[in-house]
Amino acid sequence: MDYGERSLIVHEQLRGKISIGAKLKVESKDDLSLVYTPGVARPCEVIAEDPGRALELTMKRNTVGVVTDGSAVLGLGNIGPLASLPVMEGKALLFKQYAGIDAFPICLDTQDTDEIIETVRRIAPVFGGINLEDISAPRCFEVEARLQDIGIPVFHDDQHGTAIVLLAAIINAAKVVGKDPADFKVVINGAGAAGTAIATLLRCIGQDPAVCTSVEDVIICDSKGIIHRDRENLTPEKEALLTYSNRDNRSGSLKDALKGADVFVGVSKGGILKAEDIRTMADNSIVLAMANPEPEIFPDEAKAGGAAVVGTGRSDFPNQVNNVLAFPGIFRGALDVAAPRITPEMKIAAAHALAEAVKNPQADKILPSPLDSTVAPLVAKAVAKAAGS
Amino acid sequence: MDYGERSLIVHEQLRGKISIGAKLKVESKDDLSLVYTPGVARPCEVIAEDPGRALELTMKRNTVGVVTDGSAVLGLGNIGPLASLPVMEGKALLFKQYAGIDAFPICLDTQDTDEIIETVRRIAPVFGGINLEDISAPRCFEVEARLQDIGIPVFHDDQHGTAIVLLAAIINAAKVVGKDPADFKVVINGAGAAGTAIATLLRCIGQDPAVCTSVEDVIICDSKGIIHRDRENLTPEKEALLTYSNRDNRSGSLKDALKGADVFVGVSKGGILKAEDIRTMADNSIVLAMANPEPEIFPDEAKAGGAAVVGTGRSDFPNQVNNVLAFPGIFRGALDVAAPRITPEMKIAAAHALAEAVKNPQADKILPSPLDSTVAPLVAKAVAKAAGS
Repeated sequence: MDYGERSLIVHEQLRGKISIGAKLKVESKDDLSLVYTPGVARPCEVIAEDPGRALELTMKRNTVGVVTDGSAVLGLGNIGPLASLPVMEGKALLFKQYAGIDAFPICLDTQDTDEIIETVRRIAPVFGGINLEDISAPRCFEVEARLQDIGIPVFHDDQHGTAIVLLAAIINAAKVVGKDPADFKVVINGAGAAGTAIATLLRCIGQDPAVCTSVEDVIICDSKGIIHRDRENLTPEKEALLTYSNRDNRSGSLKDALKGADVFVGVSKGGILKAEDIRTMADNSIVLAMANPEPEIFPDEAKAGGAAVVGTGRSDFPNQVNNVLAFPGIFRGALDVAAPRITPEMKIAAAHALAEAVKNPQADKILPSPLDSTVAPLVAKAVAKAAGS
Repeated sequence: MDYGERSLIVHEQLRGKISIGAKLKVESKDDLSLVYTPGVARPCEVIAEDPGRALELTMKRNTVGVVTDGSAVLGLGNIGPLASLPVMEGKALLFKQYAGIDAFPICLDTQDTDEIIETVRRIAPVFGGINLEDISAPRCFEVEARLQDIGIPVFHDDQHGTAIVLLAAIINAAKVVGKDPADFKVVINGAGAAGTAIATLLRCIGQDPAVCTSVEDVIICDSKGIIHRDRENLTPEKEALLTYSNRDNRSGSLKDALKGADVFVGVSKGGILKAEDIRTMADNSIVLAMANPEPEIFPDEAKAGGAAVVGTGRSDFPNQVNNVLAFPGIFRGALDVAAPRITPEMKIAAAHALAEAVKNPQADKILPSPLDSTVAPLVAKAVAKAAGS
């Protein structure tokens, strides 16, 4: 039986992968008077006088809302808020297991940008952070950007979670092939949420987050080929990408872009590349083909084309680029220091911590296992430290 | 140390009275592939094709949102959404303990009626029911009424929870004093959320919910005295109360209303009645003085004035009218049958089940203890049955 049918059975058995747990049991009238009326009035009064005390007296500090509109769920697309719930529950389960964070799914019955933003603002009081999830581009950019002022971290995992894990993968792959990532020519195929965030974060690949050395040469492709200055009808988001990509204003197809490139980053769709395409890249190329379930090119074929390091989004090949390596530790670190937002410095610190979690990177081991429970605490520590910088 | 200070210590220790629990632990790549990608795509697809399957495949069916705007919290008033969180957490804790329901606080940073309504509509997909809490009158009426069409129960506990427990109290008190509740003259002091709901539910006090015999004679007072047809500047809500109260259009003060009354229901403020006021009521009067923390009259004084049965909202006197006797069982019953709303029949069934949970009512025992874990299942069963009627 395949994963899908077995997953269906597991979901039918569980009827929800998360539940609410009570931290204490009411066993006497005295207990009831402490956790509920009349005693509960006192912490309420204290918070009313000093809202900051909510971090010490309530669930707020350890609670994250996993907010989606169901518009870009896995490879399924716009299946709506209700059908996206199994994914959000899974996310909440992983938040708990890897970072001890209490995450709750908020599946919004609206796909209007303004309405998503105002709804998140309205429900914010309970939460110490908001993980935006599976909201389609370009709305996801505006939703996230306009929520940066609400006093708690708002982080679109499909963008930055993916970008952070990918940056870690590139850092370690560079060690394996013995190149300096600052010299890399990188081609990103896919100009949606993840592709844009990756391009942004690649500007800051330096080992020292404070220095933030750039990958100088990044080319981004979409379904029409290379995004360049002379293309007509570019969206504002794609215009913005040109401020930090395609320095030489190259044009052409994805295959044109690949010629001589050191790194291919695929966040697009399955089966679009062949060994012969990889063969046109620089020696010892790095191929991170993350389309799911079918990667842009399978590892064997990429290696046949000369790739030295290959990663995918799949758990059945080495070097799985999986967001679970990033989001639990990032929020843990941010919540621990009550950071008001996730800064670029915190993202870069997370990527470096994640890269360093692999003691001796090898071609088939550039990332830790998604099951490695030691990773999130390392990422959290680095993120918390970077929050203060 | 009083309840308040002890409660503050408990809250500081717990930092949140509820948490999220993961129903399973991810221990292998196989587990990860079932609860998260790629396997989770299959339940998502199934729900996208048939939304009803969400009740079998997700947390929805057992999950209740506890929604407040923080405008009428306990006796504290309008302390806002963040400061109300300890109350909502307490509610969630009690939902879990008494009915196994997963309840999550939604504290809204808006007190605009339209915005509260549209926000609840937007967040509804995750929930099997919505418990409205501590929203001030008259907005609470409109919020609840306009959300009755969203396909899941929306229930304002301050109104109906209180009314249901009170109705149970009156049913059993009637047995104690040997009167027929249909003959009762009832005076309600307080025309807010609870008072209005009580007046509404008293129209349906008959033992057989289908028959719905009314208490014929109900008078409602507010801070200006008896609400009657000739009073000027009545709000629309108070005008509406007159369609089923004050049949004889009496006027005057609360004390005028009490003369000859069988039952006093106080949902107002502390210390407003004396033994001499109770003495003007009918013989064997019933006094339910629910103001918190100080009741409208203390039990000793009410009994000195001739009351046969006295209840309050406090845990340190007999006959505590506490919503926890109602809301867990009501939602349990409604969720068990996936009821789209809580009907009057379900409320009345809940009140009768609650009354019957006391096998042999006595003057000092007209209600079960709020700690009695056998109550919610009895209420749930009656509510589920009534949902189908």
